[in-house]
Amino acid sequence: MPITPEQRDEIDRLRAATYTTRRATVPALEEILYQPIEVLDHGFVRVVDYMGDDSAVVQAARVSYGKGTKKVSEDAGLIKYLMRHRHSTPFEMCEIKFHVKLPIFVARQWIRHRTANVNEYSARYSILDREFYVPAPENLGAQAVVNRQGRGDLLEGEEAAGVLKLLRDDAEQVYGHYEEMLNHREDGTQIDPSRQGLARELARMNLTLNYYTQWYWKVDLHNLLHFLSLRADTHAQYEIRVYAEAMLDVVRRWVPAVFEAFSEYRLGGTSLSRTGMEVVKRLLAGEPVTQETSGLSKREWRELMDQLGRAE
Amino acid sequence: MPITPEQRDEIDRLRAATYTTRRATVPALEEILYQPIEVLDHGFVRVVDYMGDDSAVVQAARVSYGKGTKKVSEDAGLIKYLMRHRHSTPFEMCEIKFHVKLPIFVARQWIRHRTANVNEYSARYSILDREFYVPAPENLGAQAVVNRQGRGDLLEGEEAAGVLKLLRDDAEQVYGHYEEMLNHREDGTQIDPSRQGLARELARMNLTLNYYTQWYWKVDLHNLLHFLSLRADTHAQYEIRVYAEAMLDVVRRWVPAVFEAFSEYRLGGTSLSRTGMEVVKRLLAGEPVTQETSGLSKREWRELMDQLGRAE
Amino acid sequence: MPITPEQRDEIDRLRAATYTTRRATVPALEEILYQPIEVLDHGFVRVVDYMGDDSAVVQAARVSYGKGTKKVSEDAGLIKYLMRHRHSTPFEMCEIKFHVKLPIFVARQWIRHRTANVNEYSARYSILDREFYVPAPENLGAQAVVNRQGRGDLLEGEEAAGVLKLLRDDAEQVYGHYEEMLNHREDGTQIDPSRQGLARELARMNLTLNYYTQWYWKVDLHNLLHFLSLRADTHAQYEIRVYAEAMLDVVRRWVPAVFEAFSEYRLGGTSLSRTGMEVVKRLLAGEPVTQETSGLSKREWRELMDQLGRAE
Amino acid sequence: MPITPEQRDEIDRLRAATYTTRRATVPALEEILYQPIEVLDHGFVRVVDYMGDDSAVVQAARVSYGKGTKKVSEDAGLIKYLMRHRHSTPFEMCEIKFHVKLPIFVARQWIRHRTANVNEYSARYSILDREFYVPAPENLGAQAVVNRQGRGDLLEGEEAAGVLKLLRDDAEQVYGHYEEMLNHREDGTQIDPSRQGLARELARMNLTLNYYTQWYWKVDLHNLLHFLSLRADTHAQYEIRVYAEAMLDVVRRWVPAVFEAFSEYRLGGTSLSRTGMEVVKRLLAGEPVTQETSGLSKREWRELMDQLGRAE
Repeated sequence: MPITPEQRDEIDRLRAATYTTRRATVPALEEILYQPIEVLDHGFVRVVDYMGDDSAVVQAARVSYGKGTKKVSEDAGLIKYLMRHRHSTPFEMCEIKFHVKLPIFVARQWIRHRTANVNEYSARYSILDREFYVPAPENLGAQAVVNRQGRGDLLEGEEAAGVLKLLRDDAEQVYGHYEEMLNHREDGTQIDPSRQGLARELARMNLTLNYYTQWYWKVDLHNLLHFLSLRADTHAQYEIRVYAEAMLDVVRRWVPAVFEAFSEYRLGGTSLSRTGMEVVKRLLAGEPVTQETSGLSKREWRELMDQLGRAE
Repeated sequence: MPITPEQRDEIDRLRAATYTTRRATVPALEEILYQPIEVLDHGFVRVVDYMGDDSAVVQAARVSYGKGTKKVSEDAGLIKYLMRHRHSTPFEMCEIKFHVKLPIFVARQWIRHRTANVNEYSARYSILDREFYVPAPENLGAQAVVNRQGRGDLLEGEEAAGVLKLLRDDAEQVYGHYEEMLNHREDGTQIDPSRQGLARELARMNLTLNYYTQWYWKVDLHNLLHFLSLRADTHAQYEIRVYAEAMLDVVRRWVPAVFEAFSEYRLGGTSLSRTGMEVVKRLLAGEPVTQETSGLSKREWRELMDQLGRAE
Repeated sequence: MPITPEQRDEIDRLRAATYTTRRATVPALEEILYQPIEVLDHGFVRVVDYMGDDSAVVQAARVSYGKGTKKVSEDAGLIKYLMRHRHSTPFEMCEIKFHVKLPIFVARQWIRHRTANVNEYSARYSILDREFYVPAPENLGAQAVVNRQGRGDLLEGEEAAGVLKLLRDDAEQVYGHYEEMLNHREDGTQIDPSRQGLARELARMNLTLNYYTQWYWKVDLHNLLHFLSLRADTHAQYEIRVYAEAMLDVVRRWVPAVFEAFSEYRLGGTSLSRTGMEVVKRLLAGEPVTQETSGLSKREWRELMDQLGRAE
Repeated sequence: MPITPEQRDEIDRLRAATYTTRRATVPALEEILYQPIEVLDHGFVRVVDYMGDDSAVVQAARVSYGKGTKKVSEDAGLIKYLMRHRHSTPFEMCEIKFHVKLPIFVARQWIRHRTANVNEYSARYSILDREFYVPAPENLGAQAVVNRQGRGDLLEGEEAAGVLKLLRDDAEQVYGHYEEMLNHREDGTQIDPSRQGLARELARMNLTLNYYTQWYWKVDLHNLLHFLSLRADTHAQYEIRVYAEAMLDVVRRWVPAVFEAFSEYRLGGTSLSRTGMEVVKRLLAGEPVTQETSGLSKREWRELMDQLGRAE
């Protein structure tokens, strides 16, 4: 269960209250405001606040271009133009705040994105809950051979079962010892009243990296899109990609025209090197080109053929 | 007149429309939303959007401290605690967006604050208006002698009149030449249809630094307070300080508990050096201390005596 | 003359002294260390310090990949891989510090790049020199008609002469008045001993935007390359592009393998949209495609045909 | 053993080579360049590169103040002035790069400091070593009662022994299972050739937070000092404080004048609130003040009395 009954009550309370505002408001996003979107076995992501909409991007761009742009009459067209030419500052004019519950090893990848505001649950102050991530069997990939950081075939049978058992048992055991060191039971009572219990800031080091943490994460739309372009990508680890995909859906609700442009130019876009572009031109001119005559390494040639959809 | 009739209409239109939201909403800030607050002779600052309120700071801090802080029952107390101990991340959870019209030389100081999002009017794309800043006579300070970056006595009489005339005449003249180079009249027509007119990106270089520009400036509350602590300070140049003071008023409306804590611990606070604190302790112990026996330089001694309110 | 005799002496003094270090050192960059590279009519850029070399990028990447990358034996290959896959953090491990003298309107574009450290000459403290930029006749472009922020044909004859005269005369005049308001002559004496002189922080507002300022600008290699990819681009204003081009040469000396990869994948690279890539695939498959059947707007179609080198 | 024999050889090789440079060089820092300073049971911090020295701070400040500051003749005095008045940009002109080996739970605190460049060992690519942190008995603090995030008395006797045994045994066990899931022995061979082994990016989640990771961390002097002012503080967790203290020693070697000023005004400095300062003035005027008449809360009164060295 990703959220506690207390959190559920709090969410219901927040969702029940409405206010009158003069600010730009997005009904499709208001609809899901505060609602947790479940991710992995115990995680979630939920929007807790936002600022701006598609028009806020346009409004900012129009300040930059002043009277000079009266002719650009269509907002979606302007947004596509900005995205295509990497004019990023107007996208910084929208802001969103998420509450995320995620495994610690995912949090460690996520936090590399520095241009964001974060408040994380502190295990120095408080005791972490007994919640840890265990992959579903269909995500239990073997080490990839070619791509050193990826997954290959699925583990199966006994090997898979063995891995899942080890992960579960170790996580359970270290949590039991965490409580023992803290001299603390889940109901808040002490295990042994004659002991003091280890400091929380020390005891936490006994937990494994699949334990869940949570944080508020606030970011502007430009930096969110940058995050999503890296983390909703097939090269990203599955466990962070599912968060990115949930957030992509949020972006679609929030700023549909920006989402459209982002899909066309960034998520669905392709980068070609100088030499790769020369190859494309030669091919278009009807010249036969092979890896040997292309000027590309074998790896780059393979990547280019993939991009061009040419089975080799 | 700081705003154009078109801007006035746009503001009235925006203020007339209201929406229903589940987001945290601050009625005292809604009241002035979009309204320009006049600053200097043609400038303004106005709030065009915001995210969060006092409670958003508390909410973020409570995520950090988790269950461990149930006892801190009072929000204002928690906010004071955070401010006193420089726990800055919860203040980053609020965001505000201003539209500002300001002289270019003020914009050049302002932009040094890097942790903010900016979209500025572009004089590459568009033609700047004929609006420039001229100080009011009561702000026409002479160069300070001791403080190399400050102002001393007011200029008076002929000297003051001469300065004002030079500033006005030069600004008028360079604008006339700006239009002449652009081959462009304010009504949009060409001066001489046989000429092409210089590129805007070049012609603008003929304008003086007191011409007004404008931008959208979006910032989180922590970085806004940092900006205000430097720019609402008596060491800041008057022309940026008046913007900071107008924004301080906005902060008071928006997040009154944060404003209270900021006034007590930052704006009204004092930093003492290690040696300065030793002097205070010796004085409290009844020991007579002079600059010579204090271990402080003459300048630091004078600053400390000022801070302690001891006329020398 | 871009540098003063005092600066020349200082540079000669610095260049004459050598030290022994265990740090990574780049002889080709040491060769030009401290030497001003002239840019525009009075500007310059010069390297005053640096940290790291090509190997520092590799070293950082190897820490990330640990033992797992023993097979990537070739440094230049690894650098190309990092550049191609936008693994940017290893490039942040090199740092460079420039001293730049540049017109204020160029400084205003430059400062938008926020991830850098800057110390600028302060006209609150000190008096600016009588040095301003006037374009060479071959850079005196007319306003472009299609591209609202660009330049078109060159101005010629009387129109060009008129513009140059206006720029020069206005700049001279405002400087004269600047000194008059300051009550200050270039030799340091007062014009009228009975006057106080206006505060510097006010008098500077009378200068035009083509006056030169200077700053120290320190940046990591990743952010420098991002700056160069935008500012060494044909869409950048000529007056900032010449600085970017001078700095590109510095990068070539400093980190030749990084420069090579940057040229291949970024400067010389091409981005295609999802639909643009579909068009390329259809063309390669021998299908005739027109703008009408392409799914692209007229503008995007024209851009794509340009990229593919297909005259229409 | 914090470093491997391969690392030792690499360090010796680097230290043996010297180069000639025109850059500012600090012999006292060169002396320890590349040398690991041991921290905790298996960690270290070592300087791998640096840019600038005390003079670089002065040089940058002098650019800002231009000719206006000829009178500030003494460098140390200028550095103290900059530190006292929080003119931070000149301190950004120095840069340093550390290689750090540290437990993951320490890395998670450290990474909150966003204004730095980081390349961390990736457990997606590579296999982590069997090295984990276990506190020395003299650091095994009990949970503090008043300060929810701190440590109180030391654990003793059986309780201490029990904690150390749990930490060690769990860390050993999860590493054994890590290898089993990876199907990998430390010598590089497979445990069971018929199995594929779990992907590294998944297996790592079974490790506890006291396992060591390592990274390159590059930061400018201003942000380093900010980090040190928070992390070399008594409120910081012991396990990060020892790293901060080792780095403080590095700062003392590198930029002694900056270190001096930092100690006087920041590390050794005191912040007083508006009301706290009023109390000091009243006490100095001979007025008796109690908590009740002070306007301070009990907690703040206690903190102020502590700062003033007045036992209550």
